Amino acid sequence: MRARTREGGPPQGGPAPELVESGFALENADAPFLHRGLNLADISHVLDLARRGIVAPDAERELLALLLDVHEIPAEEFPYDPALGEAYNSREHYFVGRIGDAAGWLHAGRPRREATRIALRLHLRRQLAELVTEAVAFARTACDRAEEHAHTLLPDQTYLQQAQPSTFGHYLLSFVYSCVRDARRLLDELDWVDCSPGGAGCVNGTRLLEDRSFIAASLGFEGVIEHTRDAMWQVDGLIHVLATASSLLSNFSKLAEDLEIFSSSEFDFVDLDDSFTRSSVLMPNKRNPYALAIVRGASGVIIGRLSGFLAVTKSPSARSDNLIFAYGEVPRALDLTLRITRLFTGVVRTLRVNADRMAEELARGYTQATDLAEHLVQRVGVDYRTAYVVVGRTVRAASRAGVPGGGITGEMIDEAAREHTGRDWGLAGADLSEVLDPWRIVLSRAAQGGAAPDAVAAMIASLRTTLDGLDAEAAARTAGFDRVEDALLETARAVLEDKPC
Amino acid sequence: MRARTREGGPPQGGPAPELVESGFALENADAPFLHRGLNLADISHVLDLARRGIVAPDAERELLALLLDVHEIPAEEFPYDPALGEAYNSREHYFVGRIGDAAGWLHAGRPRREATRIALRLHLRRQLAELVTEAVAFARTACDRAEEHAHTLLPDQTYLQQAQPSTFGHYLLSFVYSCVRDARRLLDELDWVDCSPGGAGCVNGTRLLEDRSFIAASLGFEGVIEHTRDAMWQVDGLIHVLATASSLLSNFSKLAEDLEIFSSSEFDFVDLDDSFTRSSVLMPNKRNPYALAIVRGASGVIIGRLSGFLAVTKSPSARSDNLIFAYGEVPRALDLTLRITRLFTGVVRTLRVNADRMAEELARGYTQATDLAEHLVQRVGVDYRTAYVVVGRTVRAASRAGVPGGGITGEMIDEAAREHTGRDWGLAGADLSEVLDPWRIVLSRAAQGGAAPDAVAAMIASLRTTLDGLDAEAAARTAGFDRVEDALLETARAVLEDKPC
Amino acid sequence: MRARTREGGPPQGGPAPELVESGFALENADAPFLHRGLNLADISHVLDLARRGIVAPDAERELLALLLDVHEIPAEEFPYDPALGEAYNSREHYFVGRIGDAAGWLHAGRPRREATRIALRLHLRRQLAELVTEAVAFARTACDRAEEHAHTLLPDQTYLQQAQPSTFGHYLLSFVYSCVRDARRLLDELDWVDCSPGGAGCVNGTRLLEDRSFIAASLGFEGVIEHTRDAMWQVDGLIHVLATASSLLSNFSKLAEDLEIFSSSEFDFVDLDDSFTRSSVLMPNKRNPYALAIVRGASGVIIGRLSGFLAVTKSPSARSDNLIFAYGEVPRALDLTLRITRLFTGVVRTLRVNADRMAEELARGYTQATDLAEHLVQRVGVDYRTAYVVVGRTVRAASRAGVPGGGITGEMIDEAAREHTGRDWGLAGADLSEVLDPWRIVLSRAAQGGAAPDAVAAMIASLRTTLDGLDAEAAARTAGFDRVEDALLETARAVLEDKPC
Amino acid sequence: MRARTREGGPPQGGPAPELVESGFALENADAPFLHRGLNLADISHVLDLARRGIVAPDAERELLALLLDVHEIPAEEFPYDPALGEAYNSREHYFVGRIGDAAGWLHAGRPRREATRIALRLHLRRQLAELVTEAVAFARTACDRAEEHAHTLLPDQTYLQQAQPSTFGHYLLSFVYSCVRDARRLLDELDWVDCSPGGAGCVNGTRLLEDRSFIAASLGFEGVIEHTRDAMWQVDGLIHVLATASSLLSNFSKLAEDLEIFSSSEFDFVDLDDSFTRSSVLMPNKRNPYALAIVRGASGVIIGRLSGFLAVTKSPSARSDNLIFAYGEVPRALDLTLRITRLFTGVVRTLRVNADRMAEELARGYTQATDLAEHLVQRVGVDYRTAYVVVGRTVRAASRAGVPGGGITGEMIDEAAREHTGRDWGLAGADLSEVLDPWRIVLSRAAQGGAAPDAVAAMIASLRTTLDGLDAEAAARTAGFDRVEDALLETARAVLEDKPC
Repeated sequence: MRARTREGGPPQGGPAPELVESGFALENADAPFLHRGLNLADISHVLDLARRGIVAPDAERELLALLLDVHEIPAEEFPYDPALGEAYNSREHYFVGRIGDAAGWLHAGRPRREATRIALRLHLRRQLAELVTEAVAFARTACDRAEEHAHTLLPDQTYLQQAQPSTFGHYLLSFVYSCVRDARRLLDELDWVDCSPGGAGCVNGTRLLEDRSFIAASLGFEGVIEHTRDAMWQVDGLIHVLATASSLLSNFSKLAEDLEIFSSSEFDFVDLDDSFTRSSVLMPNKRNPYALAIVRGASGVIIGRLSGFLAVTKSPSARSDNLIFAYGEVPRALDLTLRITRLFTGVVRTLRVNADRMAEELARGYTQATDLAEHLVQRVGVDYRTAYVVVGRTVRAASRAGVPGGGITGEMIDEAAREHTGRDWGLAGADLSEVLDPWRIVLSRAAQGGAAPDAVAAMIASLRTTLDGLDAEAAARTAGFDRVEDALLETARAVLEDKPC
Repeated sequence: MRARTREGGPPQGGPAPELVESGFALENADAPFLHRGLNLADISHVLDLARRGIVAPDAERELLALLLDVHEIPAEEFPYDPALGEAYNSREHYFVGRIGDAAGWLHAGRPRREATRIALRLHLRRQLAELVTEAVAFARTACDRAEEHAHTLLPDQTYLQQAQPSTFGHYLLSFVYSCVRDARRLLDELDWVDCSPGGAGCVNGTRLLEDRSFIAASLGFEGVIEHTRDAMWQVDGLIHVLATASSLLSNFSKLAEDLEIFSSSEFDFVDLDDSFTRSSVLMPNKRNPYALAIVRGASGVIIGRLSGFLAVTKSPSARSDNLIFAYGEVPRALDLTLRITRLFTGVVRTLRVNADRMAEELARGYTQATDLAEHLVQRVGVDYRTAYVVVGRTVRAASRAGVPGGGITGEMIDEAAREHTGRDWGLAGADLSEVLDPWRIVLSRAAQGGAAPDAVAAMIASLRTTLDGLDAEAAARTAGFDRVEDALLETARAVLEDKPC
Repeated sequence: MRARTREGGPPQGGPAPELVESGFALENADAPFLHRGLNLADISHVLDLARRGIVAPDAERELLALLLDVHEIPAEEFPYDPALGEAYNSREHYFVGRIGDAAGWLHAGRPRREATRIALRLHLRRQLAELVTEAVAFARTACDRAEEHAHTLLPDQTYLQQAQPSTFGHYLLSFVYSCVRDARRLLDELDWVDCSPGGAGCVNGTRLLEDRSFIAASLGFEGVIEHTRDAMWQVDGLIHVLATASSLLSNFSKLAEDLEIFSSSEFDFVDLDDSFTRSSVLMPNKRNPYALAIVRGASGVIIGRLSGFLAVTKSPSARSDNLIFAYGEVPRALDLTLRITRLFTGVVRTLRVNADRMAEELARGYTQATDLAEHLVQRVGVDYRTAYVVVGRTVRAASRAGVPGGGITGEMIDEAAREHTGRDWGLAGADLSEVLDPWRIVLSRAAQGGAAPDAVAAMIASLRTTLDGLDAEAAARTAGFDRVEDALLETARAVLEDKPC
Repeated sequence: MRARTREGGPPQGGPAPELVESGFALENADAPFLHRGLNLADISHVLDLARRGIVAPDAERELLALLLDVHEIPAEEFPYDPALGEAYNSREHYFVGRIGDAAGWLHAGRPRREATRIALRLHLRRQLAELVTEAVAFARTACDRAEEHAHTLLPDQTYLQQAQPSTFGHYLLSFVYSCVRDARRLLDELDWVDCSPGGAGCVNGTRLLEDRSFIAASLGFEGVIEHTRDAMWQVDGLIHVLATASSLLSNFSKLAEDLEIFSSSEFDFVDLDDSFTRSSVLMPNKRNPYALAIVRGASGVIIGRLSGFLAVTKSPSARSDNLIFAYGEVPRALDLTLRITRLFTGVVRTLRVNADRMAEELARGYTQATDLAEHLVQRVGVDYRTAYVVVGRTVRAASRAGVPGGGITGEMIDEAAREHTGRDWGLAGADLSEVLDPWRIVLSRAAQGGAAPDAVAAMIASLRTTLDGLDAEAAARTAGFDRVEDALLETARAVLEDKPC
């Protein structure tokens, strides 16, 4: 067997300044996300070591007293210092300074990464539950505004070209569904996040902790991640958390972009409340829909956070960078997503809708054309393509003559039919109001999911039930986190007071 | 009201050559993915129009006869021609050429995008079910190989530095879990895909089809996408499909990268079967693990497909590019993912494992150090940090002396303890074999998820049950698609034969 | 020394079907991009081997005759077959079938990757030169249209809110600059592409070819990539080529998105020529600006091609996937970029501009406000902030009274000044036409880069000179490629005819 | 003309809390990057207004005194407060608090975005010059280490399989070239950054400043960005800055990944200095090459910063989010790139190279095979393919017999030749040392760019000249920035002291 040519054992001496300024500075910048969770993980670990008799009662009490103290110190006041290494090292340094060698018990049976992985999950599970709550709040607000505008006519568009008559309520409601689906996905991924890697050691557990359930239960995790190597290194849930945040903001960005267009003076369909706009310091005429630019830009930023994280994880397995760069990137991305979700809820809640302008543009156009063609198919018995061509000709002639869609007459259609088919369709004097009046067209969309007010009301009612369920689930999760974390602190205090808990 | 300044109605004249060479050429290149589904969607639509009396029986028969004919034409033989527009236009052109005006009935109550959206979903639902099947096949294969190597010692690594003794079986099994979770996510997204947008019209339904359930049922969709605008424009499921493909390949890429390292002559831990390698045409000594490079590269490509699609969808709402660029990008990305999954299953199935080399490198190292320190904590009663420092010194001294981890003695530890703590730990002559023998260390990892063979066997047994379930679900879905699509064709044939169905 | 445990030498037996269906199928799909270049590289290599006496004259003639034959075979007709390996293997198989062992000389001193790297560069250098030509064509067209509309008033916008009076010419011209800068960057990267990796062997050259200049010169490369390992594995230029394509399309996408908004019936500022639009098959009223959706979507796709390629190259060094996945991804990305550039040039060339509507909206608004405030600063001597507040109040009052910007009077300003400052500014009866007439405001922007027609004309003149230069450079490069490639073929033919060349 | 339905003029009332917590908080977080530049831009603007007589001398002095004061306040001490808006608003609030209405002059002829755009460029130009300096420092260090190891034999690899004999010096040098090319690209983009948007107003200049050269000159910009709309909204340079940072780190990541593999105990080719490693807190045997994980992870993060920024800019034109999200994203990305570049320079500078292990693995393998085959081509006169097959068989037989490459004999080749070709090649007793001795093989690579020590020395000499030039250019740029910014402050102070400057 070839002898080793290098010395074994841990490194000697301190880190290079370039390392302090890069790796350690980066990791310390993430300490605020991990601070609280590291403490809870440490308390749980001490209790677990103690109940197995690995840590002696005195050391246990010293450690718990210290950790309960540190629990009261806000992250920004704790002496995290990159010169000492990453956050875990600063904590160790502080602990040794406070209680000496007894601090050394903390490392038994657990690598640094286990504590940090747990802390990340404790942070993320709250962020995810909160994001579900906020997504639901957006969806509720959009439902409310949709209900309010279930009778507000709108020329709905594709390619930003007027397509068919609809209502602003039906339009707005379409953005709720994607949001609800993503809220559901967030809860699915919360199940991934809310699972304990505790007791997994580095890659292959530890001889000290043969039962991994205590840490999981004391920190309120839903379960234990079974395979120890998977427990330490899995990143798939983080990818999907970021993908869902991207999807959520992508949906908001679409509506934001629409609203930016609708709030131009040329469209003048909607107007943001002043409190979501910004003035120009140069142009006294300007009132910029600043909030919409923030939503759209944030959507782009989050796309990059996802693709960056995917690139980070394109590495061999069991590589620390996969998680080191998650500790900050994922919480920050979720924090941005939360702020944007709240912002956009505010935008929609306070949006002014200019029903007159929507009606005016609808009246100028030819969004009735499809219904007219469908009507002719049934009335005249021609195939749709033929009806389409005849209506297309009619629309062209009407537009040349300055006649809007509502003014189309049977005679005009007959003329187009003669040109195209060589014969008259006998429509002179026909009453076409049923298929030319935008409101009656909307009323005809009474089938499932259509724009008729009753169909919209049915969707809103059903969505509200769904939203209540999502909301309750998120609230229950958060309440559960509060409860179990309080109980853990209480247990620790009880040890100090020597009373059974 | 301001008069319109532009002419209404559809465009006159043909497309510009630049448009044919870009948009239409791009869309026609995707026709093979949509061909079969467009046909099924058309058949279902004709049957629906007919049962409502919108299309007369003669036209119905003409159309169905034509569509059943076209069903037999492979995509590559159908005269798709960018000069005519996108795939739908080529079909229309062909239909008119075959049956004249009767072809025009096909467009009643349905925009082109509805047919294409349906066709995309019919294609994707099969791809997703197939991908679940292939992911399960990978997972099964990895379970089999893990079982085979549950007793093959491996120095497991982090940062590619030897960390703790483990087995190749335990190591390999860790890649199964992420794969299983992604298979589950694929089935979740299959629920999204396997829903009918039929009857949604452009954004707001149609006056012709007040009941959207026939199309959904006849094409075997699980349900109807309720809101008509959402039905036409939702993309969240596509984002998550691509994200899951990225996650799946990301996991494979990690293992592929590990295997590339392990199959270097310096590691020599594993060797690919010849059939997954490639020779050099220059270097007669080379046998390159080409399959691993393909897996890793494909993983990078798919990251780009996801971020590209997210960028595409960063647009206003109801914009055609969102789906036009999905028609090709998503099926191609899934096709690549399928091929790579099959490839990697083959790599793992045929992998040669060099247990001797793994054992040799394990024997040269100091992966026992953690267990030794944990043992000292319990035996000597010192805190972990102190035990860690003493063991670290012992390892360093041993490595200088050319003594591998298995040769560490109580005396060596005592000496290190004296240096660090000033006192002897009384270990002279102690039997440390329990904590220095890698195999006994592995046996100690008997807790949930650990590397002990029994723990590995338990995981494999449990995984196999899960895999059976996933497999059955995917198979049932695919069988269902076959059944319902056959039934639809049968129904159409029955109409032609004038018999009840 | 530890003995090798594995057998040396090249793999035995054929590839696994899973490998044929993934790696080899992928690589064969890229053969059309490489076919021509592989042939040229082979001819050059044979000539080089021959002139050094490594290949005997007979074999040289056999090989050259064969290669000149193959040069006439289009890629799609050549028997590329994944079952044989990648494209190079199919060629070898074909060559052996045609001339037997003599084909074996081709591999002397050159790995497969060298031939393929050269072929990629021969393809890319033409694509890059062509893309410069097309970018210039777009820029010229935009200059022409800008010149035509140097007097067409436009309310220019930020946040899609009217900002200041400008002209459509000035607006359109702003998109030319970014395009010109990217054309320049493409020429810079062409220098990277147009360099010879020839003679670099695998990573460290070959003993056979001590002079690397013949291959470089005979293929018309600008120079030799010095370091042999860098020559084989460099990817930085490919990253920048894709980044520049992204940047180019990003600029187009912005204008496309603007034009989509401007061509809504609500704005009605512009209208696409029919040949760049598409009808709906359902809605007879629709005329969709389809070309704009294609431009925007392609811009998103290319972002993904770049981030995907960056993810591919996140690997260890000297890994084949870096280039294997470039052979198809980069040429396809450039091909898409070329098609989109041509498309967008057509869109801009044929765009109808509705000057009346632009003027109408300008007249309705308050884009004069900044000039008015600046005027008051100078006339009244107040600070800008004060003038801004007073004008802001004036605008608000005017809008309430239904008075557009052009109708603001000195009295109205005085009233606002009194409210804000407590005093009158003595503007009653003042002639404000110089600062309220949009056209006179535009004329005041006579400084460098401003919207005054003379300033626009000066920019256009200067740009045209720049564009002439870029065009000439691209044309000269392409002509050079033609010339040198023809000369190479001529040299090969001359060998066959045994005449000096 | 249709009347406006909404009120004109700037928004009333303050921002919503959701906006303060999102947009304004985000923008204020970027204030440290802009603080210094905003001040310089303000000083330059005041001087420009004054020299044109727009601002009166008293107000000029008040403003300059204030701005010189603020210049001394570090960003973190300045009262930036999101509740007031973004950074510019906080400044305005502070200015009014200090000097009242006179602060209002600052806004004359300039929108907020002009000041911020200038500030961004002043910050970025220093970062870019610094990054060139640091990239050069890396390249110099790598040249030094390459020179040191020009005689250190290495089995160079592709696919991580031994390929050909080379030296560690030649290997390491290959990473310098890409770095140099990216440094050059950074200087090219510095030309883009170091150009003045001053005087461009919002999109179309201002009536107040007809000469845009004063601001450009006083801030030391290389020139003026001509077109005013382009000046305000161009983002192409930012895309390319991020792409170049991605490319730079991508190159580092490759070497880092190689070094991680090389520093495994199985390879044991290199070892990081302790100061760039990190211990495990659990495993006393571990010494983790932490710095390499940081480099690799950062490379992934930057890929995401680029793709995110590209997604942000996928918007209509003249949208504020394009730049708002650049103010923080680009400086932070460059800051990370700077830190990583410095870190990696340290890693390479202090790397321990284990020449014995490299030589040992080289001796075990068959990297001579290519040279042997090439030799046989010339000696025996067979085609390369035949020689390749014979050498391949020889290698296989040798490996079975436990004979390393250096031990291959003419007899062994003859035997393989007989098997393959049916005849003996007469090599019995031949001296093959020239083509079997790795060092002699390396010496044969004396052509341009090869691994022979003289060729490596020539490359290093040439690179050092290039690096001197790049370094000088970066230093000169930075010195120029210092000089001109000092001069601007001096000019402002001179105004206060009423002396000519």
